[in-house]
Amino acid sequence: MADVLIVGSGLIGASIGLALRGGADVVLHDRDVATAAQAIARGAGRLWDGVERAQTVVVAVPPSRIASTLLGLQSNNIGRTYTHVASVQSQVQREVEMLGCDVSTIVGGHPLAGRETSGPQGAAADLFVGRTWAICPSSASSAQALADVRDMAEGCGATVVELAALVHDASVALLSHLPQVAASALAGLLAPTVAGHAQAGATRGVASQPAISSAEHGLGLALSGQGLVDTTRLAASDPTLWAEILVLNAAEVAPAVRRLADSLGALADDLEGGEPHRDRFAAVLEFLLRGNRGRALVPVKRGEVSEAFGRVRVSVDDQPGRLAGLLTAAGDAGCNVEDVHVEHVPGRPQGLIELVVETSVVGDLGDALRAAGWHVMGELSPTHPPAEQ
Amino acid sequence: MADVLIVGSGLIGASIGLALRGGADVVLHDRDVATAAQAIARGAGRLWDGVERAQTVVVAVPPSRIASTLLGLQSNNIGRTYTHVASVQSQVQREVEMLGCDVSTIVGGHPLAGRETSGPQGAAADLFVGRTWAICPSSASSAQALADVRDMAEGCGATVVELAALVHDASVALLSHLPQVAASALAGLLAPTVAGHAQAGATRGVASQPAISSAEHGLGLALSGQGLVDTTRLAASDPTLWAEILVLNAAEVAPAVRRLADSLGALADDLEGGEPHRDRFAAVLEFLLRGNRGRALVPVKRGEVSEAFGRVRVSVDDQPGRLAGLLTAAGDAGCNVEDVHVEHVPGRPQGLIELVVETSVVGDLGDALRAAGWHVMGELSPTHPPAEQ
Repeated sequence: MADVLIVGSGLIGASIGLALRGGADVVLHDRDVATAAQAIARGAGRLWDGVERAQTVVVAVPPSRIASTLLGLQSNNIGRTYTHVASVQSQVQREVEMLGCDVSTIVGGHPLAGRETSGPQGAAADLFVGRTWAICPSSASSAQALADVRDMAEGCGATVVELAALVHDASVALLSHLPQVAASALAGLLAPTVAGHAQAGATRGVASQPAISSAEHGLGLALSGQGLVDTTRLAASDPTLWAEILVLNAAEVAPAVRRLADSLGALADDLEGGEPHRDRFAAVLEFLLRGNRGRALVPVKRGEVSEAFGRVRVSVDDQPGRLAGLLTAAGDAGCNVEDVHVEHVPGRPQGLIELVVETSVVGDLGDALRAAGWHVMGELSPTHPPAEQ
Repeated sequence: MADVLIVGSGLIGASIGLALRGGADVVLHDRDVATAAQAIARGAGRLWDGVERAQTVVVAVPPSRIASTLLGLQSNNIGRTYTHVASVQSQVQREVEMLGCDVSTIVGGHPLAGRETSGPQGAAADLFVGRTWAICPSSASSAQALADVRDMAEGCGATVVELAALVHDASVALLSHLPQVAASALAGLLAPTVAGHAQAGATRGVASQPAISSAEHGLGLALSGQGLVDTTRLAASDPTLWAEILVLNAAEVAPAVRRLADSLGALADDLEGGEPHRDRFAAVLEFLLRGNRGRALVPVKRGEVSEAFGRVRVSVDDQPGRLAGLLTAAGDAGCNVEDVHVEHVPGRPQGLIELVVETSVVGDLGDALRAAGWHVMGELSPTHPPAEQ
């Protein structure tokens, strides 16, 4: 009997195998033989013979196949405990109930690990280290199953967060799926409106008239800045992958998207309102202050929020090695740089580099860099990003 | 007669003085004597005596005082040509007409320079180098005035883009003001709903029920990732400054916000729809593809779009100097790193660093870093950011 059986040897499955290597006897399976072979060649485990039992079975297959895979495994009495790695939990929980699985031995899980590649080639033993691994027991889950799944996730180095499937799905709807939607909606307004799309949009209530015409597009985009770059970054995401996620979690995503639409609709009302300047100003200010409060809750590092950090902005010429030199200088000054933002301006020979450091050392770092001959543009209080009015 | 008179010696005014230093005789004024003195001490120009004439007068005061300041200067026949630096142009253009200014000598301008500090202390001679400087002549502007303002902006090292005030305002509404609104709206949904605000929201059609309750907030936020951090970054902006900008440009911002709200409302409709899976999927996919197309237009570097860049992701331990070491290694490999993203994960001793480089060198850089002993997590095709499902 193996400790862990992993069914589905792609990025996540193979990474779990690599992460548990040394501490557990892992067997692997994949319906694609070549994929399983690659994972095994990477050292993620040994090949499952199709009958060997395992204490914990991890089903790391696409969401649509999880429930049927669990049923098949349970029918053959393969595992003591079963889990999966679905990014949306409620739907799977409903499906295993509908299929008549033994739900007492099933505890769903969702490791929140960035996945930019697929397949076992991208697998890494440390993919889950320090990451959140949500586990979502149902009311029927046994204490044994919960403990087994927790052990496995912690064995991968993850930090386990236990929460109900519906709370999980509502949380990722708000914290992960809605940012994707907001970025896509914003970027979508920049796309030149093709006739067919304009038509489709119009019938669905979307104004088909772009704010700036296609002819002016190139000219107008010269006025874009870093704020647009950051806010639309997610809009470049894989559309097929994300369409699947959004549809799968539609029950939670739809009301979140509706709230976002309503909040923006209310702001548009306020901006359109014929009220005197002060009323309109107060309403817009309240909208922005609510955004300030929400942003202050976003963990930017080790669970701390953005108020703990300040920034030092340095202008450098845009040559290879300048960024490395600047960071070396910051290191020489004894500063741990938490984050770096590089802003290149079209046609500009200089770049602006923003070093994010703990607020307490902002002044010292600025002084040290100036003393070392760097062109420090300014030190920033932690709260506000630069306005690109 | 001076070459340039700058009225208002704050960050922008003083930076213009510093930028023109050497090439032009600059006189400075500020209604706050100490501010003028600071700008002069920085070397931005000499003190204006209140009567000396100038070829080009730059009014760098807050938008609400621009028109009256221009009228006063014209009444005393101080300049040959007048400009200002308002972040919204149409309103000022209307005001100078209403006040009866001589509009033939006025050409509005808007240098798109990041401003994170105020006052002459933050001024820099290179603040405008390679930046876009929008200039917005009216139909009444003389060729002389246009040439004078263009010369001044180019003298500061800026790239001049000439466009009508309304096109300017529509462009910044879409490219700068709308990203701010989207970030604030998204972050605003994270803010715990205070009773009073919920009430106010409900009466304005905003659903007052948060998607996750306050009690679950701390737990739920553990599920947030880098996408949320990036997409809400602007939400930390100075709310007073931004409320002023949004209200000033309400005529252009309101319809843009409405289009964003409508686009999101249509998506919510699609997600809520009882249609079969495939129809809903197709609609969501189309929404995401439109976002892909829009994002592809966003200039991320020197006017190039994001497709030209790929990424190499490296896992490093979270120690001072590791980032500098990595960038030095990239430099040793002959790679110019265009941008750096640092992802820290709560509780994780490692950080994930993403080096953005030209697509053609992605593979070479990955190989070179691996050979140098770095833990390369993967090289990415340029199109999609990592999914944080």
